[in-house]
Amino acid sequence: MRCQVAIIGGGPSGLLLSQLLHRKGIDTIVLERRSQEYVLSRIRAGVLEWGSVELLREAGVGQRMDAEGFAHDGTYLACRNRGFRIDFAERTGKQVMVYGQTEVTRDLYAARAAEDGKIITEAEGVTIHDAKSDAPHVTYMKDGREHRIDCDYIAGCDGFHGVSRKTIPDNVLKEYERVFPFGWLGVLSETPPVSHELIYAQNRRGFALCSMRNANLSRYYVQCPLTDKVEAWTDAAFWDELKRRIPEEAAETIITGPTLEKSIAPLRSFVAEPMRWGRLFLVGDAAHIVPPTGAKGLNLAFSDVHYLYHGLVQHYDGDDSGIDSYSERALARVWKSERFSWSMTNLLHNFPENTGFELHMQEAELDYLEGSVAAQTALAENYIGLPY
Amino acid sequence: MRCQVAIIGGGPSGLLLSQLLHRKGIDTIVLERRSQEYVLSRIRAGVLEWGSVELLREAGVGQRMDAEGFAHDGTYLACRNRGFRIDFAERTGKQVMVYGQTEVTRDLYAARAAEDGKIITEAEGVTIHDAKSDAPHVTYMKDGREHRIDCDYIAGCDGFHGVSRKTIPDNVLKEYERVFPFGWLGVLSETPPVSHELIYAQNRRGFALCSMRNANLSRYYVQCPLTDKVEAWTDAAFWDELKRRIPEEAAETIITGPTLEKSIAPLRSFVAEPMRWGRLFLVGDAAHIVPPTGAKGLNLAFSDVHYLYHGLVQHYDGDDSGIDSYSERALARVWKSERFSWSMTNLLHNFPENTGFELHMQEAELDYLEGSVAAQTALAENYIGLPY
Repeated sequence: MRCQVAIIGGGPSGLLLSQLLHRKGIDTIVLERRSQEYVLSRIRAGVLEWGSVELLREAGVGQRMDAEGFAHDGTYLACRNRGFRIDFAERTGKQVMVYGQTEVTRDLYAARAAEDGKIITEAEGVTIHDAKSDAPHVTYMKDGREHRIDCDYIAGCDGFHGVSRKTIPDNVLKEYERVFPFGWLGVLSETPPVSHELIYAQNRRGFALCSMRNANLSRYYVQCPLTDKVEAWTDAAFWDELKRRIPEEAAETIITGPTLEKSIAPLRSFVAEPMRWGRLFLVGDAAHIVPPTGAKGLNLAFSDVHYLYHGLVQHYDGDDSGIDSYSERALARVWKSERFSWSMTNLLHNFPENTGFELHMQEAELDYLEGSVAAQTALAENYIGLPY
Repeated sequence: MRCQVAIIGGGPSGLLLSQLLHRKGIDTIVLERRSQEYVLSRIRAGVLEWGSVELLREAGVGQRMDAEGFAHDGTYLACRNRGFRIDFAERTGKQVMVYGQTEVTRDLYAARAAEDGKIITEAEGVTIHDAKSDAPHVTYMKDGREHRIDCDYIAGCDGFHGVSRKTIPDNVLKEYERVFPFGWLGVLSETPPVSHELIYAQNRRGFALCSMRNANLSRYYVQCPLTDKVEAWTDAAFWDELKRRIPEEAAETIITGPTLEKSIAPLRSFVAEPMRWGRLFLVGDAAHIVPPTGAKGLNLAFSDVHYLYHGLVQHYDGDDSGIDSYSERALARVWKSERFSWSMTNLLHNFPENTGFELHMQEAELDYLEGSVAAQTALAENYIGLPY
């Protein structure tokens, strides 16, 4: 088989890149290790920057998002039983869209299928060959035989554990990491959300987040030790802890109920440089991870897709400047989003090593934010997404 | 002896409080452990927030500052050989005034002397008595005898090592502290400053600051290990190190010369709560210390003076609300200034424990600051001074 761009990874960034390139007449093949059902069963983030919203529309997959998603004008920050609102629309003129990553992925699979996009699922043992040559190829196993795809370029959209980053030699790749000493216990609950807009709560007991998927589906989180076992957290214990960390007014009105899903996720910051090696480009989680605070993970993957998509379209029009600057341009935005996610994580979580001084620093920053239009604008412009 | 307000400490905050109260007909006595010559020989900060400028004018001691000080419209931040400017005037409509603390203190001594203000220098063994009663008094030794001052209130303006904070029982006082793992090697040099406005330089070798006192007097700093001995730093070594940390353009044009003074100072954040105990009020360094990054130390002492001055004036007009809320109001601003000084210190210094990830966070924040009006406005509004 042959295609112009082989895309490794059938998650949202690989599918979006495939869909965008297809509409510009560039043919792709997407290789996914898992089944489509498995990919669509993963519960992930749900907040889209406005740039991500526009990229999905440009890809022709915005209809259901626009009909069923929830445009949010702002968010709440809470501290010591007091809350205040940051108005994105007023501070920046823009909004964010609450629409689950699972739904984005579902829409992308449907769009690719409608246009006979080539997506090969359950492709095992994917291997990248000759990425530094002018004629790279990818091999994989399916139905007991090895297959080969020859291509011009390879987009590594296969996540943190994928093969793409590991293909780049150790003496080329630089990796930067910060592992946070806690996790998030997340719950999906078939109950009306306590607040239409998100509530980010700093509390001396630990961070909590009230989020939502729709009018009858809530997503709540509490910071927890990484040593906690999810089985040991009863529903009652979860609701009790959540209520203790959010402002009383919210705790008194929250509607609790059985949980559909409960899991503990670690928090990590990670960046690998460069994001290009020969004819291989890294995209999204393959190159970088953010902690979930601030909801940047999927959006940052889409920002990589934006740069790579435009770079490849330019390339097939005879101009290599976009792909040649891909790593540098993508990384400039990656580091800023990493900074925002890291600083929001630092601001809102209880760190085991924090003394009373550091706790006061968090409270003073929230106190300052509450009173400063400039500081709220800075937070808002990061939250709705820095310009590409 | 008797007075309405006994002021312990003859540094700038004690003298300013005395001067302001005097002009409202409230009589004070200032007790200073050292000689006036000693106090005036201390080299300290040199950047005044606009609120401090206005408070000095209100006290009638603004003439020489207005004639000889330098109003600065902005400052430079530098990172990896690139610099950019933050325009305070454009972002906030305000400026800062560069005028040395030593000069402020000299003007205040002259003003108090001109109005026969009672300043008792070389007062040893100052002791606060009955601060929790309605009739406090202060004793001290001078010329071999003990003296006693009866008063309504006591203002503890005697710095971190003074007796005032130590008078408050341990079970009342809460202390918060962050000691930074480095110091500042500072140099005063009789050379024209490399830049009229300050240059704050983040660098992987360590922080550097180019500051000035006047057209022929420069003040430069480099971050250094606390284990360094000042005697081991030759002038040549200092200039070499400074040049390596500031953008090339500045390094190439800097005029070096013999140094008038060279010293190493530690960096610490410290806050004691509450700032009132009975009839004793803590003011300035007696209650809190900031690291010098951002030049908040003297300004924060003056903000305490502002709240206490207005509280005492109100009190003698029959309204105790100002002194009753003094601790709470002063501390709200203290914590925000502590946060700013701590965050500027974290942004600009090389921490021994920093990994490559944290270095990238500093560089990403400076990169973001360079491009964001909102972030520059937030920095500027803190630098010129948050409202009282």
